[in-house]
Amino acid sequence: MSEHIVSSYDTDLQNLRRSIAEMGGIAEKMMADAGTALVRRDASLAQAIIAADQRLDVLQREIEEKAILLIARRQPMAIDLRETISAIRVSGDLERIGDLAKNIAKRVVAISDQMQPQKIVLGVQHMSELVQEQLKDVLDAYATQDVKAARDVWERDGGIDALYTSLFRELLTYMMEDPRNISFCTHLLFCAKNVERIGDHTTNIAETIHYLVTGETLPTDRPKNDASNYATVSAGPGA
Amino acid sequence: MSEHIVSSYDTDLQNLRRSIAEMGGIAEKMMADAGTALVRRDASLAQAIIAADQRLDVLQREIEEKAILLIARRQPMAIDLRETISAIRVSGDLERIGDLAKNIAKRVVAISDQMQPQKIVLGVQHMSELVQEQLKDVLDAYATQDVKAARDVWERDGGIDALYTSLFRELLTYMMEDPRNISFCTHLLFCAKNVERIGDHTTNIAETIHYLVTGETLPTDRPKNDASNYATVSAGPGA
Repeated sequence: MSEHIVSSYDTDLQNLRRSIAEMGGIAEKMMADAGTALVRRDASLAQAIIAADQRLDVLQREIEEKAILLIARRQPMAIDLRETISAIRVSGDLERIGDLAKNIAKRVVAISDQMQPQKIVLGVQHMSELVQEQLKDVLDAYATQDVKAARDVWERDGGIDALYTSLFRELLTYMMEDPRNISFCTHLLFCAKNVERIGDHTTNIAETIHYLVTGETLPTDRPKNDASNYATVSAGPGA
Repeated sequence: MSEHIVSSYDTDLQNLRRSIAEMGGIAEKMMADAGTALVRRDASLAQAIIAADQRLDVLQREIEEKAILLIARRQPMAIDLRETISAIRVSGDLERIGDLAKNIAKRVVAISDQMQPQKIVLGVQHMSELVQEQLKDVLDAYATQDVKAARDVWERDGGIDALYTSLFRELLTYMMEDPRNISFCTHLLFCAKNVERIGDHTTNIAETIHYLVTGETLPTDRPKNDASNYATVSAGPGA
């Protein structure tokens, strides 16, 4: 293989890395803005988030196309093949994170005129901040190929799932206390679910980093504490 | 290229097709069973759905690995490359459909002891039947590479999104009428959302079929009628 081919192959990989970094930056900002828009019920910030999602979609398609062409043309082996496959996977997760942040933004638009007590959104805000940190950490771990940091993110996801379950119960309780909260809290429930799923995608990225660096796959039974699928709350006698 | 290589390449592609067909069959059954389990509040059927999901996960990983090896080793061109890429995409969508059906099953377990009036689940049942039909049609279209049938599925998705929005409002109304419905209807809302997202994945598969057969990408602005993100229902004076 000539020097020329090797170096243009490196350029291809660097381009992929750059595009992933751009996607990561956009997804992080969308997620942070979605949290802020929700807390402030800021419809115009929400509209900006919705608009930002398009660029993510374009980048994801580009990365997938480039990565597959790269595999077909250059037949990378071992670590280079894994890096190319990882780029496809991570771009897919970042695109989904953008979709989920966009969905939160749409719900902010829906509830922007509702004046429920601020305490009701505190739980979602807290969860959203934790997941933002997860996303930041996993993107740093991807950029530096830090498998230990990735594993740390992977292990922290269980805590977020547990938080979601308790938030689920809390929001149901607000709904039972006062029917005027039902519409608002339902949107918050879906926002919380979206944040939890963003957490799942950061965990996917952590798994991809582990595969990229070690060539091995993490066990499929990752730490899951999401019992909300099974959670119910009974309307008390006063409801 | 020797006869031998060509024919073993065909075998690779046929293996991919067979695995996709197996995944399709499992996903269809999981989705149909989820609808039945929900209507009957049948916790043991729900447990069977949860168990079935593992096989889908295994198949998806296998398809992805095989497809990427195939691209790297045989450098397929044009239609063969598109079929290999399509196998990766479709298996990803089918794996997600399985996850969503599994999530419905978990919620059936949660609400299996609740005796709400049957009319409350009718809307979700109806929507679930429509999406089952979409899934069946899109899998047939994939097997026969029928781009017209795929486009038909793609265009029908807007109707399902519109149905979901009206169902969202209906379930909020049941919650406001009687707080004892809140927990049950919240799970139903998430079930309906899962069904709607299964619909989105059938639409993704339709888009993949279009790309596979024509080499062209459908416009990104597919018929979307999901206004539920923006929907709110006010608690009336009697609530």
